[in-house]
Amino acid sequence: MPAIETAPAGFGSDNQAGVLPEVMAALAVANRGAARAYGADPWTAEAIAKLRARFGEETEVAFVFGGTGANVVALLAALAPHEAVVCADCAHLAVDECGAPERTVGCQVLTLPAPDGKLPVERLGPLLAHRGDVHRAQPRVVSISQSTEWGTVYRVEEVRALADFAHAHGMLLHVDGARLANAAASSGLPLEAFGRAAGVDLLSLGGTKAGLLFGEAVLVWDPAIAARLPFARKQATQLASKQRFVAAQFSALLDGDLWLRSAAHANRMCGRLAAALGDAAGIELERPPEANALFARLSSPAVRALSERYLIGLWDEQRSLARFMTSWATTAMEVDAFAAALRAEVGHGGAATG
Amino acid sequence: MPAIETAPAGFGSDNQAGVLPEVMAALAVANRGAARAYGADPWTAEAIAKLRARFGEETEVAFVFGGTGANVVALLAALAPHEAVVCADCAHLAVDECGAPERTVGCQVLTLPAPDGKLPVERLGPLLAHRGDVHRAQPRVVSISQSTEWGTVYRVEEVRALADFAHAHGMLLHVDGARLANAAASSGLPLEAFGRAAGVDLLSLGGTKAGLLFGEAVLVWDPAIAARLPFARKQATQLASKQRFVAAQFSALLDGDLWLRSAAHANRMCGRLAAALGDAAGIELERPPEANALFARLSSPAVRALSERYLIGLWDEQRSLARFMTSWATTAMEVDAFAAALRAEVGHGGAATG
Amino acid sequence: MPAIETAPAGFGSDNQAGVLPEVMAALAVANRGAARAYGADPWTAEAIAKLRARFGEETEVAFVFGGTGANVVALLAALAPHEAVVCADCAHLAVDECGAPERTVGCQVLTLPAPDGKLPVERLGPLLAHRGDVHRAQPRVVSISQSTEWGTVYRVEEVRALADFAHAHGMLLHVDGARLANAAASSGLPLEAFGRAAGVDLLSLGGTKAGLLFGEAVLVWDPAIAARLPFARKQATQLASKQRFVAAQFSALLDGDLWLRSAAHANRMCGRLAAALGDAAGIELERPPEANALFARLSSPAVRALSERYLIGLWDEQRSLARFMTSWATTAMEVDAFAAALRAEVGHGGAATG
Amino acid sequence: MPAIETAPAGFGSDNQAGVLPEVMAALAVANRGAARAYGADPWTAEAIAKLRARFGEETEVAFVFGGTGANVVALLAALAPHEAVVCADCAHLAVDECGAPERTVGCQVLTLPAPDGKLPVERLGPLLAHRGDVHRAQPRVVSISQSTEWGTVYRVEEVRALADFAHAHGMLLHVDGARLANAAASSGLPLEAFGRAAGVDLLSLGGTKAGLLFGEAVLVWDPAIAARLPFARKQATQLASKQRFVAAQFSALLDGDLWLRSAAHANRMCGRLAAALGDAAGIELERPPEANALFARLSSPAVRALSERYLIGLWDEQRSLARFMTSWATTAMEVDAFAAALRAEVGHGGAATG
Repeated sequence: MPAIETAPAGFGSDNQAGVLPEVMAALAVANRGAARAYGADPWTAEAIAKLRARFGEETEVAFVFGGTGANVVALLAALAPHEAVVCADCAHLAVDECGAPERTVGCQVLTLPAPDGKLPVERLGPLLAHRGDVHRAQPRVVSISQSTEWGTVYRVEEVRALADFAHAHGMLLHVDGARLANAAASSGLPLEAFGRAAGVDLLSLGGTKAGLLFGEAVLVWDPAIAARLPFARKQATQLASKQRFVAAQFSALLDGDLWLRSAAHANRMCGRLAAALGDAAGIELERPPEANALFARLSSPAVRALSERYLIGLWDEQRSLARFMTSWATTAMEVDAFAAALRAEVGHGGAATG
Repeated sequence: MPAIETAPAGFGSDNQAGVLPEVMAALAVANRGAARAYGADPWTAEAIAKLRARFGEETEVAFVFGGTGANVVALLAALAPHEAVVCADCAHLAVDECGAPERTVGCQVLTLPAPDGKLPVERLGPLLAHRGDVHRAQPRVVSISQSTEWGTVYRVEEVRALADFAHAHGMLLHVDGARLANAAASSGLPLEAFGRAAGVDLLSLGGTKAGLLFGEAVLVWDPAIAARLPFARKQATQLASKQRFVAAQFSALLDGDLWLRSAAHANRMCGRLAAALGDAAGIELERPPEANALFARLSSPAVRALSERYLIGLWDEQRSLARFMTSWATTAMEVDAFAAALRAEVGHGGAATG
Repeated sequence: MPAIETAPAGFGSDNQAGVLPEVMAALAVANRGAARAYGADPWTAEAIAKLRARFGEETEVAFVFGGTGANVVALLAALAPHEAVVCADCAHLAVDECGAPERTVGCQVLTLPAPDGKLPVERLGPLLAHRGDVHRAQPRVVSISQSTEWGTVYRVEEVRALADFAHAHGMLLHVDGARLANAAASSGLPLEAFGRAAGVDLLSLGGTKAGLLFGEAVLVWDPAIAARLPFARKQATQLASKQRFVAAQFSALLDGDLWLRSAAHANRMCGRLAAALGDAAGIELERPPEANALFARLSSPAVRALSERYLIGLWDEQRSLARFMTSWATTAMEVDAFAAALRAEVGHGGAATG
Repeated sequence: MPAIETAPAGFGSDNQAGVLPEVMAALAVANRGAARAYGADPWTAEAIAKLRARFGEETEVAFVFGGTGANVVALLAALAPHEAVVCADCAHLAVDECGAPERTVGCQVLTLPAPDGKLPVERLGPLLAHRGDVHRAQPRVVSISQSTEWGTVYRVEEVRALADFAHAHGMLLHVDGARLANAAASSGLPLEAFGRAAGVDLLSLGGTKAGLLFGEAVLVWDPAIAARLPFARKQATQLASKQRFVAAQFSALLDGDLWLRSAAHANRMCGRLAAALGDAAGIELERPPEANALFARLSSPAVRALSERYLIGLWDEQRSLARFMTSWATTAMEVDAFAAALRAEVGHGGAATG
């Protein structure tokens, strides 16, 4: 087997990173003896117990393979056929899932403008204009991403306000928490502050971007939705047969607040990158980073020149906009080298619009 | 963390086993540095190259999370809306996927009786009776399992005959190869003998039951289906972001014919179990095992008595029928102990119908 | 415009007939002035009132365009994503709807053998074997056709027994009543004897085959299903904008028991046909007709020879089996002429297997 | 039967009107003798011939029940699973079909802003930004409404420009022509000017709003789509069994250009209404009408006061915006009376924002 040459560091996305060593160790430990498949194993029981200790004993948990799958499973468990989900126009489930919710759930996905990625509660009022009108799919789930696709973070009161609005009008709040750990770390709050405690009804709790090899979890609290959840997971092709290996990873992530240390580190590295680029001529930061994503306008050739070395690309070609992300694996040395390389490229290449 | 007590050995299914050590090692090796997500990484390129070296350079490969997902992705890439899949009445995609094909593909799943799990080509003729009738979903894909849900194995000429029939009538042949390694090992043929070479158009190539932590692959050869395959994978929620960790496992499985050694071992263990039980009073084997599954009629209380120790259960309560499976991890000592325990339980508990 | 040449009489299906004169008159009367669209019109209110007077005041009614649509709307309003419908293997929704339930409802359609078209309650027991097993779509609706695709009629006690079984196990009973009028007339019972009174939960009440130009109705009684019904109708493309013209037809059908007189006539004509053919050499009746369908084995060339004149064809080519149907429009003279023609053709053409 | 009291005239929508007398006559004429069901009848053959004489001999036609059904059938015949339809944000298929395309086709419906209802070709460029990106549903069909939901009309060159753009990028153009007759009449062009001749690939040709009792037609020209069309119609529950009664209505509409006389009349009545309201204090017309819809801002109480008498309502409560429509049935006297009533109500009720 030829040795595979890898990039030293990836700043293109947090899923370019590998797996946390503690998680690899947990996988090795779980690889012992035989276990019942499909979740009837002690690792799953243990991981669910840990999640319930945080999110409440009435929490129903479904471990799944991936993030798109988590969102689809949550919606499939919650929606009647004519009900719609409403989200920001940049939401992963609207623009990055190749129409998976439409195909498998069969639901309409309605979008609202959200320039910084956050859905303002004020935007939701017009959704009520057509309640009961059979010509319209009926908004039933409001879905937000935490942290958002633009790297911003909802304050817990903002989440609560969205939940209150939803509940006041017979709707549910879903959180796509592929990066919930980063948001919680950024907020100085425990993970569970963004669960039932904030009024959330459906939570896609991210694992992969937090440092797992693969694996996410769907958490729900309503008994009727909970009853549908296991079937939704199976029908949406998200039930792992050797589920102990998803559960063991989640246990490792929760133990000793590994999720928090990892996410806080990623966030700090992002702040360091912002600081290192902030005063560079020809690099314009969109906004101060709130979690682990930094959006910057800079010359396209500079991005392309470093594309292979740092696994980056342009987020929006027309606006010369790039997204840089940090992860649990990013080191300060890597940040500094990357920032220096960017400054150098921009320096002799010209400004963002050049 | 409390130590988790595990069963010494599982005979209930081959997915009760853990992960091959070589595969765990490959995961550790792949956990180095950064890599582009979603399959644009060198491990994926390498694993695809290995599969192409076996299955033909024109093979299109999509690594996916799980087995139900593999089947759904294959069908989604191949079917027009009004086209149906035809399979044995015991096929996984008809009875063990909670309606996943109907939901995500939207297709009708037609079943034909297959007492030993194998779809006889003679059964397919009546499918042609309603070609072009708009009131009928049009059979387009014939799907078989290799090895079958009843542990039987199609001879390569049988697969070829099904493919020839399908092609002669504008249809395609799909193989659900969750246990293709066991079938190939049983046949003394390379894996690829059951791919394009046998006329197969769509192949779900199993990894999990062959000893991976998770991961399957979908292989197709038709260019039009190949063009749809990557979208089908994403839309059906089966695209892994850290795909290097699926690919690296497949590479390990292919290297040095690990798949063959593992599957042949599992098959041998199954044969040993059959031999050890074959003359036991009160235990009636359904048929000689052809791969790694053994079906036996024996007293229900005996099965229940050993349920926790060996992770077994009844396959068909009414017929007092149990399925025992072996895996890469099964040892001869475990087989002997299990057989002895079964004989002992049946001995003082009475016969199958007792 | 060239005059269109029509067949004098069609014995191939009851939907080869035209429209009852009373129904045409009702359409003309309803074509007066303006009316709110989508059912907010007085004709709809009146027809619903008439149906409620028969089927109970708590009946929720949705008028729809066609029969496949009626079945799809009923299922869409009743099923959760992972729930399945169970029906006879000859049921319209399993074999004559091109996979419409799978596509729009996304549900699995499970079939059970029913040689005479009727689903015996004893067959339903095995459905319970996998309750709660997430790998299996969960049977939730038992669907029967009344009268059946083989022209047989469930006695009201048989319907009640199926309903009781369903309800005892948390399931619902659906009746595909495309020919409910014929079944009721055959039973000497009012239409509503096969609604809530017999334990039916979901009723597709046929209009087209009863003599309408087009139009069926879906009747439900459960409040939760009733709340979903109007959305299901719209989403399944079955909401007519000028709904007064569906409603007015149903009113005409109910007035003065036009449905009963029409269906009883059709049934009588079928009996007359059976009598006229019963002793013919070379014609073998499958069973005495119970409603308006007669199945007979006779020589294929004889059927083909009369195909254009009487709009008939072979139901099952291999068995030389033809289905003959009568309708509100069939006259005794037509029956006699058709019977004579058949006898003559068979007479000089040979027996069924000739 | 109590006589039903009807409104003298409806200005709320063109589907509040009844059925053209010529169409009723055609239904009566078609109600003669027996005919094969599901379109194998001479009336269907004749109507298709008439449409082909206009739209080209290679035109494939599917008569369907309703407008939502027509759109769903067209999309179901044309799209692969991962392909999306793009339309104006006010398009019927995006906001008035309760998510029918998402449910039955399973496709994503993408919307673009279109303040006057017309999709500018310039807006389509950004659709190309993510061609081939598996995370995005791939835009394949551009759908426009002619006339639009805001009563505007595309010039034939505008349609052609959209078609050219679509074809240049591997996409198709769909026209939701529920009111194509009004648009053609407004343009002084034959119906077929907006078919293949303008580059249109998929046409939902409206019948109901043009004066039929019910019935629309889907026209396609691509052979591959044509081959899927009949199955799409059946599977989407849009195949009428007594199809002669849809076809006969279309024949009547085409004979002697009844469609043109009816639509031109409706348009003229709309112009007359605009003229009668144009100088009224407290009534603000949004724009001069181009077809048969007029949007006006006026006081909500005035609209409500006339709601029952003229079957009108508010289109947009917040903006005090009403939509008034005329039809084949609208008379000049009705227009004048309605305009006078509106002026009187507004006169003593105050201005739009009052």
